Amino acid sequence: MPLIPDNTLITATPEEGRELAIMMARKTIGAIQPDADARQGVRALYANDPSALTAAGHVVAIEFATVAAANDYWRG
Amino acid sequence: MPLIPDNTLITATPEEGRELAIMMARKTIGAIQPDADARQGVRALYANDPSALTAAGHVVAIEFATVAAANDYWRG
Amino acid sequence: MPLIPDNTLITATPEEGRELAIMMARKTIGAIQPDADARQGVRALYANDPSALTAAGHVVAIEFATVAAANDYWRG
Amino acid sequence: MPLIPDNTLITATPEEGRELAIMMARKTIGAIQPDADARQGVRALYANDPSALTAAGHVVAIEFATVAAANDYWRG
Amino acid sequence: MPLIPDNTLITATPEEGRELAIMMARKTIGAIQPDADARQGVRALYANDPSALTAAGHVVAIEFATVAAANDYWRG
Amino acid sequence: MPLIPDNTLITATPEEGRELAIMMARKTIGAIQPDADARQGVRALYANDPSALTAAGHVVAIEFATVAAANDYWRG
Repeated sequence: MPLIPDNTLITATPEEGRELAIMMARKTIGAIQPDADARQGVRALYANDPSALTAAGHVVAIEFATVAAANDYWRG
Repeated sequence: MPLIPDNTLITATPEEGRELAIMMARKTIGAIQPDADARQGVRALYANDPSALTAAGHVVAIEFATVAAANDYWRG
Repeated sequence: MPLIPDNTLITATPEEGRELAIMMARKTIGAIQPDADARQGVRALYANDPSALTAAGHVVAIEFATVAAANDYWRG
Repeated sequence: MPLIPDNTLITATPEEGRELAIMMARKTIGAIQPDADARQGVRALYANDPSALTAAGHVVAIEFATVAAANDYWRG
Repeated sequence: MPLIPDNTLITATPEEGRELAIMMARKTIGAIQPDADARQGVRALYANDPSALTAAGHVVAIEFATVAAANDYWRG
Repeated sequence: MPLIPDNTLITATPEEGRELAIMMARKTIGAIQPDADARQGVRALYANDPSALTAAGHVVAIEFATVAAANDYWRG
């Protein structure tokens, strides 16, 4: 399982860049915790502990900052 | 539901950039947790656990840093 | 209520930039939680849970990083 | 009480820059919580909850990143 | 045990850069807590406290931002 | 006790830069909490609360981002 899909940070649009940021965050969780059952706990947590949702969104925001810089903010 | 409204980070003003940052944070939560009832828990949390408000503001601050850089800080 | 007072990130001095960073953090909380009573809970929390103060200062530090970059650090 | 001592981010050395970062973090706490007794709670917390020390160091690290960039990292 | 494998931030691809970011995060934990049993507690925590997984992913995201900038985002 | 050893952010290698980042994080804790017994609590915490280890690694990651930028990522 690759950590960076397609092995590039370059995307055509901000929308695709955001999707990449979400995937990067998820795949790193998968690398840290290869056990699928334990990872399921993360999803359950999202339902029971809303602050975990905010924490996940926080990580995506940081990943996206990197992706956006890589793409020169799609200023084009 | 798009993750980045209008598929651009460019806005006319800092105010609009801030609104975009708030929307980006919200839409990512929606992508991570598509279940609307669970998301409602986040809103309830804001009323009962004020520190969750700070955490949400924290994410917006990070999203805004990216939007502001994309717009060269609207130096104009 | 605007999110960015005066709709600009440019300030005359670092001191004013810091004040802007504090206001930006506060106004976003107001946008996320329009209910004034719930926001009051945040202030009460500051008195009862000192770690919440650190969390609020953390957000201001991030907002200030953006404002400082926008002003090229007031290098003059 | 000013938020940024001397109203500048420029310092002669990294050491002075680090001292400035610590002061900036402290003075923002003072602006958010003007009540001195409540602020005392923060200091007590440092003795009783070591993780609060890490959180405070975290904020200083972010403030210092801004100060260091302002000073072009004192590369000389 | 080196903190930065191969003593460089430069990697051939984003995938290798991400692997480096994960290793950097792990090796710093090893430097802070040289006791292997205590470190084991971290792994156990990942199984029992899913929010710890998010926190670990958060650190990787920050390390990766540095690695990606060092490599000019592998823009080629 | 200086906050920045040798009063410079410039190091010969990434490895030394990482060591500097760890020292910077530690010395700031020492400045915030000069009481050695209280600081001992931090070390004990690392053994009993693995998530504190992640939090400490988080701070090191931020300090290292600054050190790496100061050294232009040791690109040579």
